[in-house]
Amino acid sequence: MNTNDTICAISTPAGVGGIAVIRLSGGEAKTIAEGVLKQESGKGLVLKDHKAQLAHLYDGTSFLDEVVALWFAAPHSYTGEDVVEISCHGSLYVQRRVLQLFIDNGARLAEPGEFTQRAFINGRLDLSQAEAVADLIDSRSQMSHALAVSQMRGGYARELESLRQELIDFAALMELELDFSDEDLEFANRDRLKETVAALSDKVGRLVGSFQTGNALKEGIPVAIVGRPNAGKSSLLNALLAEDRAIVSDIPGTTRDTIEETMTIDGITFRFIDTAGLRQSDDPVESLGFDRAIKSAQQARIVLYVRDITVPFNQCALDDIAFVTDRCDMKDKHLFIVHNKCDREHASNPPGHIVSAKQGTGIEELKRSIAKVSRNDANKNDGVLLTNARHYEAMQKVLSALGEVRKGLDAGLTPDLVTIDIRDALYHLGTITGKVTSDEVLSSVFSRFCIGK
Amino acid sequence: MNTNDTICAISTPAGVGGIAVIRLSGGEAKTIAEGVLKQESGKGLVLKDHKAQLAHLYDGTSFLDEVVALWFAAPHSYTGEDVVEISCHGSLYVQRRVLQLFIDNGARLAEPGEFTQRAFINGRLDLSQAEAVADLIDSRSQMSHALAVSQMRGGYARELESLRQELIDFAALMELELDFSDEDLEFANRDRLKETVAALSDKVGRLVGSFQTGNALKEGIPVAIVGRPNAGKSSLLNALLAEDRAIVSDIPGTTRDTIEETMTIDGITFRFIDTAGLRQSDDPVESLGFDRAIKSAQQARIVLYVRDITVPFNQCALDDIAFVTDRCDMKDKHLFIVHNKCDREHASNPPGHIVSAKQGTGIEELKRSIAKVSRNDANKNDGVLLTNARHYEAMQKVLSALGEVRKGLDAGLTPDLVTIDIRDALYHLGTITGKVTSDEVLSSVFSRFCIGK
Repeated sequence: MNTNDTICAISTPAGVGGIAVIRLSGGEAKTIAEGVLKQESGKGLVLKDHKAQLAHLYDGTSFLDEVVALWFAAPHSYTGEDVVEISCHGSLYVQRRVLQLFIDNGARLAEPGEFTQRAFINGRLDLSQAEAVADLIDSRSQMSHALAVSQMRGGYARELESLRQELIDFAALMELELDFSDEDLEFANRDRLKETVAALSDKVGRLVGSFQTGNALKEGIPVAIVGRPNAGKSSLLNALLAEDRAIVSDIPGTTRDTIEETMTIDGITFRFIDTAGLRQSDDPVESLGFDRAIKSAQQARIVLYVRDITVPFNQCALDDIAFVTDRCDMKDKHLFIVHNKCDREHASNPPGHIVSAKQGTGIEELKRSIAKVSRNDANKNDGVLLTNARHYEAMQKVLSALGEVRKGLDAGLTPDLVTIDIRDALYHLGTITGKVTSDEVLSSVFSRFCIGK
Repeated sequence: MNTNDTICAISTPAGVGGIAVIRLSGGEAKTIAEGVLKQESGKGLVLKDHKAQLAHLYDGTSFLDEVVALWFAAPHSYTGEDVVEISCHGSLYVQRRVLQLFIDNGARLAEPGEFTQRAFINGRLDLSQAEAVADLIDSRSQMSHALAVSQMRGGYARELESLRQELIDFAALMELELDFSDEDLEFANRDRLKETVAALSDKVGRLVGSFQTGNALKEGIPVAIVGRPNAGKSSLLNALLAEDRAIVSDIPGTTRDTIEETMTIDGITFRFIDTAGLRQSDDPVESLGFDRAIKSAQQARIVLYVRDITVPFNQCALDDIAFVTDRCDMKDKHLFIVHNKCDREHASNPPGHIVSAKQGTGIEELKRSIAKVSRNDANKNDGVLLTNARHYEAMQKVLSALGEVRKGLDAGLTPDLVTIDIRDALYHLGTITGKVTSDEVLSSVFSRFCIGK
């Protein structure tokens, strides 16, 4: 991607609105903008750094719009280059014309995320912070917002970076030893190196371990609703969603699949997967809905086992529950037993949540419990959670390389062999913050962005 | 509507984007914004007039977003009040939180158009200019944009205002005559008054006369496609739209009715009304599609009469055309005879447009002709066109009152009677620029706006 030219894009959401902002970045940004702007008096306009100026925008002699123009002089701008932002009226026609005008005058339409990519290239933010910008823009709940903000403000990247620096120093010292290999000198203190490797392994290991939680919190925590037919699974889902239907439907991109519904409780997004509608069968095992129910329970972080409270809670009922729990790894999962239909006559109140989906009884308490266990999960690892799949992959490779380093040190391998593994760990660490990048990584990171950011 | 409080709204289009702008206006705008903004260092931020400042936005102690804040000190702002604009990341969550934060801190969610309404109340623009802002935001073609810009920059309102001032002076002089009615003095020169009334009548009359054209240019010029079954009406519509289908479908609000399609030719929006699909009949008169075809031709500005060129162009064909033209007032209308199917063998090339909808022959020429006659219409009355239905109604009342003034003067009525009609004309003139307003008029004008403008 060429970074010498000047790029432009509409940075505000697509559509009609009161105002829209069109952004230029690059060496020619100021010249291009000043070429089409005039003062109200008709005189030419000279942009002033960080100063909002009312201006008339012309396409040749034809008046296009009254705008507010802002010039951010390099390097004190989002991209680190000269940036001009034009606030025009939010008409589709005006937005298109202004954009076309900039292109006609030498700017190029920006690729998705290209402004942020230039900010990265110019050292305004590291790669993990750039990725957090995209996460922030995508955020739809308090939790996904908080995760993005944490990463945007440095998050674990800063901590990893300081451990990476230590490791770089060790690698350099060990490489120096190679030059003096005849003399059998040890510049790098092996014990301190082991400590650094252990600290880094611990840090990275905990981050890797937090990925399932982090990713679930970012994308929406999957909650599987399982149970025998007629236990009231669909009714429970409807009761849970009752007030939030409207909110669900105004968020674009929400899966409208009949069996998945998204809702936010206490700032956390949950994806409820209803396994209702499975065929009945005479075989009690099959009637639990073997395939879909078990699969969704396996993928879930929270399993709501729904049962009919009017049916005795005996060994048979426990066997049903065990049938589910035996088939999925319940580690890192939460199981809630939900006794439904408490509005009907029933013998006792067994342990678990007693609800009536029909009358709404106990539903708020159930929601609060679900949110509470999820918030507790979020606070593990001091609230630092790995949410990015690319980082997750890189960190797994870091862990594996660090394991090799430790093994090599324990076996007393020569510095040349150990440094290979250290360099390997350093390489994968470097990809996280973008100290090491490839075109492939960059294009996959920035293609996630919208145009104009 | 209360104008003492501080209002806030998202001013950019609804949805997710790179950035979004949230606007505050009113006495507390600066205080509310400064209450939630901090410098990067964590210190409080003091906004500076017209200066873009990078800031951190906090909800209490919780970091919400990195933003650019801009304060426009009163009266040098859009509304004439203190205005603060916050550019935040364009996430749905962030936009909602920031808006909620401003509301929690004492601002009120703005009504549609309320920023512009305050601009009007504070004398930043007159009512006709405010209406033009809404038209500008709605504009989707070069022509509707040009009409809105002309009105926004003063347009006919300024000219009417100066004639209105003359009329006010006359009214004042005539009212003075009443105080001296015993002495039979004439302060107001009747001949000059007649001249002013004539000039104003002429001006307003021409504007009233331009409304049909102006309104059609603004809303899209209706083009009726009529003709016998199998003349190829639908094929012609498809051929005309061929390249523009994509453009049509990305504009929200476009009528998706099967018989109406919108397209822009040479900066002018046209609404093509296809009367195809009418039932055939043995009666040649009925087979033209009496009801719908004639009705759409009556409402159109341009009528495309489509015929099959392989059918002889004889008296019978001319009768068919006369059947249409006899039934609609062709004044201010343009009739195009389109001889279709020229790819087939045909005897002669009769006058009109020779096309083949199937092969695309002659379609570009037809489009250019349609655009040309419409552009000529637009340039009548020196290009000053009335587009606003509210102004049209007011001007009709002005014309009628001026007619009464002239009659009164001709009949030598006493000043007290003549001034009643002058005041009536002045009243209706005043409603156009908002010198005279009522809550009803204001609310109908500003309810057309989007929230945030």
